[in-house]
Amino acid sequence: MSRFVVGVMGPGEAAGQEDMELAYELGGLIAREGWVLLTGGWRSGVMDAASRGAKGAGGLVVGVLPTPDSEGMSDAVDIPILTGMREARNLINVLSSRVLFFVGMSAGTASELALALKTGRPVILVRPSEDVLIAFSRIAGGRIESADGPEGAMRIARELLEAGRANPPGKSG
Amino acid sequence: MSRFVVGVMGPGEAAGQEDMELAYELGGLIAREGWVLLTGGWRSGVMDAASRGAKGAGGLVVGVLPTPDSEGMSDAVDIPILTGMREARNLINVLSSRVLFFVGMSAGTASELALALKTGRPVILVRPSEDVLIAFSRIAGGRIESADGPEGAMRIARELLEAGRANPPGKSG
Amino acid sequence: MSRFVVGVMGPGEAAGQEDMELAYELGGLIAREGWVLLTGGWRSGVMDAASRGAKGAGGLVVGVLPTPDSEGMSDAVDIPILTGMREARNLINVLSSRVLFFVGMSAGTASELALALKTGRPVILVRPSEDVLIAFSRIAGGRIESADGPEGAMRIARELLEAGRANPPGKSG
Amino acid sequence: MSRFVVGVMGPGEAAGQEDMELAYELGGLIAREGWVLLTGGWRSGVMDAASRGAKGAGGLVVGVLPTPDSEGMSDAVDIPILTGMREARNLINVLSSRVLFFVGMSAGTASELALALKTGRPVILVRPSEDVLIAFSRIAGGRIESADGPEGAMRIARELLEAGRANPPGKSG
Repeated sequence: MSRFVVGVMGPGEAAGQEDMELAYELGGLIAREGWVLLTGGWRSGVMDAASRGAKGAGGLVVGVLPTPDSEGMSDAVDIPILTGMREARNLINVLSSRVLFFVGMSAGTASELALALKTGRPVILVRPSEDVLIAFSRIAGGRIESADGPEGAMRIARELLEAGRANPPGKSG
Repeated sequence: MSRFVVGVMGPGEAAGQEDMELAYELGGLIAREGWVLLTGGWRSGVMDAASRGAKGAGGLVVGVLPTPDSEGMSDAVDIPILTGMREARNLINVLSSRVLFFVGMSAGTASELALALKTGRPVILVRPSEDVLIAFSRIAGGRIESADGPEGAMRIARELLEAGRANPPGKSG
Repeated sequence: MSRFVVGVMGPGEAAGQEDMELAYELGGLIAREGWVLLTGGWRSGVMDAASRGAKGAGGLVVGVLPTPDSEGMSDAVDIPILTGMREARNLINVLSSRVLFFVGMSAGTASELALALKTGRPVILVRPSEDVLIAFSRIAGGRIESADGPEGAMRIARELLEAGRANPPGKSG
Repeated sequence: MSRFVVGVMGPGEAAGQEDMELAYELGGLIAREGWVLLTGGWRSGVMDAASRGAKGAGGLVVGVLPTPDSEGMSDAVDIPILTGMREARNLINVLSSRVLFFVGMSAGTASELALALKTGRPVILVRPSEDVLIAFSRIAGGRIESADGPEGAMRIARELLEAGRANPPGKSG
């Protein structure tokens, strides 16, 4: 029986202070739930904050890096997955996560959100801007799930899981 | 001296009639300009329409497919690039195109637009919806180029080229 | 401080009985050493045997799958990394492993051995056939490390680690 | 009807003088046959020599690069495919080629030969060393095709094509 892996996606260098606080808290909640956290692995922004939050709560952290080595990797990553494939690794982040939380927005993050919609992975936007929520809901062909904060986001994730909508690993899209 | 390759990105099955007409016309203009057309290669929607447009005007068409074979490939593709990498091929579409035109919108298309912004490739949206333009301009950190139709889009592409902003192959990203 | 991840590569369906016994034993030794095991993730052959060996010894197992879902995944995988990239995932196996053990040989395994040589990752062949050892030593430009069995292979891996040749994550290839 | 694309794989910097002469001649024969040449795109070794040979004979050359830009690309490449995926691009070379010629040997080349065997693409080794031929024939589970020179290699390729064994694009592995 494999572990339940969930992703937290968000900006690196461009992340705001609020995004990082939300990500840190969310990382902690994920760890306390017994889930494994997966991020893009960088030592900056939302990726680093979520990883430190999970680590601080005793969780396990997987970092899927775009690079062939771990230069610039968050110190809180337990399992480095080195892809050497630049942003092509974004597909791996999306496919490997049974639920994807999005905190903040950037071009890289938007590509992961779009790929999650494309491949049918469940997504939850944490405190999104209204224009991002509108545009991506239109792209998704229906209202995307969103939450005011980490607690609400976790509640939605648990509901998706109970409703069987957090893709069981062998039945995904 | 390598050929000038430009991409036309857009929905497959989900494309509307207007998108396909715009894409067909744009493909023809690209071919008549002497440029090579690159698309995602499918025999549907914007990809197929642009490819047929370019082919009809005597152009050369490269199709970069997500599959390991050419099942489902547009008949108008001259050079099939078979990746077997699913949507990870979207990064290749973006990196290989010196200018990217977007006609219509879908989750897959949005991932390519986001990757183009991430990697600094010049993008031109053809007749975009207002909410997509607003959301992605915010993500890009500045107004994205857009045009009312194929002629206008080509004019912008030529200006980018003259201004040296259509990445010369050895100086990109 | 991230965990020390090592790979065991080898045939799936085509694996022989001896290869699977060697892989099972090696997986156990890796787990008892406190290292994380990484494999290609399938529920067959060397990948499955090494994973079950590590799991049986209380270890942590990462499976990097070529598929977009976990259909066919070894039951002993703790952390599924779903790539959807077919054999392009072989590069990830290689880059993410600080030492690579090879047990048995097949076309897929040979591609991983070749990529490990290409990217400079340390490799150890466990009980290789003489012609494979000769051909790949010539390709490597020097004798490749090999061992008669799992115990000997672990000894070489520890020596590489002590000699600083098991790439520290931030200084690789 | 798409063009018939064939690959010539071989070492870059490490190529010997003889390999480059063979590759140059082979590139010319491929172009005169009306086939499109695909290589790994570098301005060195077998890739560059084959590309220049094809170009000199009026052919069309596709270069599939591991980099996100065309720094270091052979001047004889007409269509640059920029992947940014390092050696993961080797899978693309293999899948996109309906026949693969191998001239010389290196770690990168060996990974492409192994992937071709794995994915069932037809391969022809041009003047291989005996130990490489033996090892890879064993890995392939049967004698691999080989030729003494470019003319012989082309003859085998034509026979494969006539026998229907050069994968039709929509029926591959």
